[in-house]
Amino acid sequence: MTNAILHQRRPGLIGLDWGTTHLRAYRYGDAGTVLESRALSYGIRQLPSGGFTQAFEEATASWPEAPVIACGMVGSRNGWCETPYIDTPADVSRLAHALTLLSLPDGRTLHLVSGLRDPERPDVMRGEETQILGVLAQHTDVPWSGTLLLPGTHSKWVRITESVVTGFATMMTGELYGLLSRHSILGGAPADAAHDDAAFQQGVRAARDSGAAGALSILFSARALMLDGALTSDAVPSYLSGLLIGDELRAAIAAGWADAALPVQMVGSMALCQRYADAAGVFGLRLRQAPENITAQGLWRVAAAAGLIDHASTRVPTP
Amino acid sequence: MTNAILHQRRPGLIGLDWGTTHLRAYRYGDAGTVLESRALSYGIRQLPSGGFTQAFEEATASWPEAPVIACGMVGSRNGWCETPYIDTPADVSRLAHALTLLSLPDGRTLHLVSGLRDPERPDVMRGEETQILGVLAQHTDVPWSGTLLLPGTHSKWVRITESVVTGFATMMTGELYGLLSRHSILGGAPADAAHDDAAFQQGVRAARDSGAAGALSILFSARALMLDGALTSDAVPSYLSGLLIGDELRAAIAAGWADAALPVQMVGSMALCQRYADAAGVFGLRLRQAPENITAQGLWRVAAAAGLIDHASTRVPTP
Repeated sequence: MTNAILHQRRPGLIGLDWGTTHLRAYRYGDAGTVLESRALSYGIRQLPSGGFTQAFEEATASWPEAPVIACGMVGSRNGWCETPYIDTPADVSRLAHALTLLSLPDGRTLHLVSGLRDPERPDVMRGEETQILGVLAQHTDVPWSGTLLLPGTHSKWVRITESVVTGFATMMTGELYGLLSRHSILGGAPADAAHDDAAFQQGVRAARDSGAAGALSILFSARALMLDGALTSDAVPSYLSGLLIGDELRAAIAAGWADAALPVQMVGSMALCQRYADAAGVFGLRLRQAPENITAQGLWRVAAAAGLIDHASTRVPTP
Repeated sequence: MTNAILHQRRPGLIGLDWGTTHLRAYRYGDAGTVLESRALSYGIRQLPSGGFTQAFEEATASWPEAPVIACGMVGSRNGWCETPYIDTPADVSRLAHALTLLSLPDGRTLHLVSGLRDPERPDVMRGEETQILGVLAQHTDVPWSGTLLLPGTHSKWVRITESVVTGFATMMTGELYGLLSRHSILGGAPADAAHDDAAFQQGVRAARDSGAAGALSILFSARALMLDGALTSDAVPSYLSGLLIGDELRAAIAAGWADAALPVQMVGSMALCQRYADAAGVFGLRLRQAPENITAQGLWRVAAAAGLIDHASTRVPTP
């Protein structure tokens, strides 16, 4: 890598975390510190009239020019430009060498991070791979092995072996919860019903006790308990949440994705991670939350591994 | 029971199978033969402007007066008149002695069959209890023991011990299939996509192979396989159907509701029963379909056990 090439690079970096319902933009200083961040509601399903271009321009307006890297559903079939899925095992280096480049009319280039595919199951992820790299960025001193959990609409259980993503599995827990509480016979509670911790714990224990049959075999208990008067209709959503999160943990143990001997690192919103941690106690599992805002660090890490960042100030060889 | 009381009874019977989306009316001859049946779209959620009364009058218009018995959601909280749930163990005699009587303005009386409740799980059913009695009506010579399966929106697995319902469990398989194929990320196939038997069988095997983790742990494979090109979007609904029906059978075996040694009697529509029977082969389970139109026989049987039917012609004691 010659000095000349290094000097062609512009300083800093712009990172985009662009999902189905959100767009977060980060402006970095040279050392990877986020100097400014912006959150817009321009998810890829809710773009402004000017489409991707307008959303991008608004998100980065007035920021100094810098290389741009993006991850998430923006690289999906319905995104700005489809990127391939990279098969596991995969690490930061493989993802950095698989960036898809999109040239914009104004001359700028968007570097899109690929999603990951586990060919064994099969399973896919898009966006979460960058969160994972953000977690691994905190363990650069020695190769890290363990299990990561990214709870959410589509929860991901990720196996990491010496800082390489070696496999993962998706549970549609959040989406199922939304479907059942909005559209099924188990719905009907007021939308503003407060979380009921006793009902949540009751659901978690019921899922655990369902054993190998699993929580689908007791899902209807949410209705029977309400008809019995044993559960108020306000408490049904919390019970259902406990039943589904509990079943995710039950399945994770049964499938060997998690075991009580090893702590699981969890990445997600504080509220949701707290809910999972509460449920984990019933199973003797230990879930520890990683810092939030991890995607920004993952984007920086891929960009650095791809050589997108101008390290000229520190890396110019002495003559 | 005196001759005088027997002669107060009117001959014949009218039976109503009144659910959420359907109303079926049966006019019986003295021996329990259905002389005429009518099907109306007046389910309890889609009544005509004149409500329950008008629906009832239309369903029975021009029929000779006779005792009237009804089962199904008409006896639910949102029905014409709420009837209690009777706890298992329960047989035809207990249900016959727990009829709820609703007196109509025209002087007629509606006899409503109660639902059943399994206090152990807890679980409830309403309408299916009468189908079960219809099946048992075919085994009146000796007490019958075995497992019944009533597949559907809310599938019921029913344990019968010497012609007594001793317990049951609900799986929301049909409702889950509808939610996932209409509203989830796994949806999107054309509504008229033909059934794909290979994809269905693939789903059934995937559910079986999910073991104790269960099919929720591989639900997302429906999307990953489609993105892979291994499953066309037209075939996703069949794969999903196989996955969910397969998981119902997997859970039934894990929970001990069914085992390969004993055949399961199945009650439901021909098409759905065929689908379950296809899936059962993968598990070594034997599912045998009972005759259709079993509810009419169940209504007759409860009415007979309740003494609603005029058996005067055959039962008048000789002097």
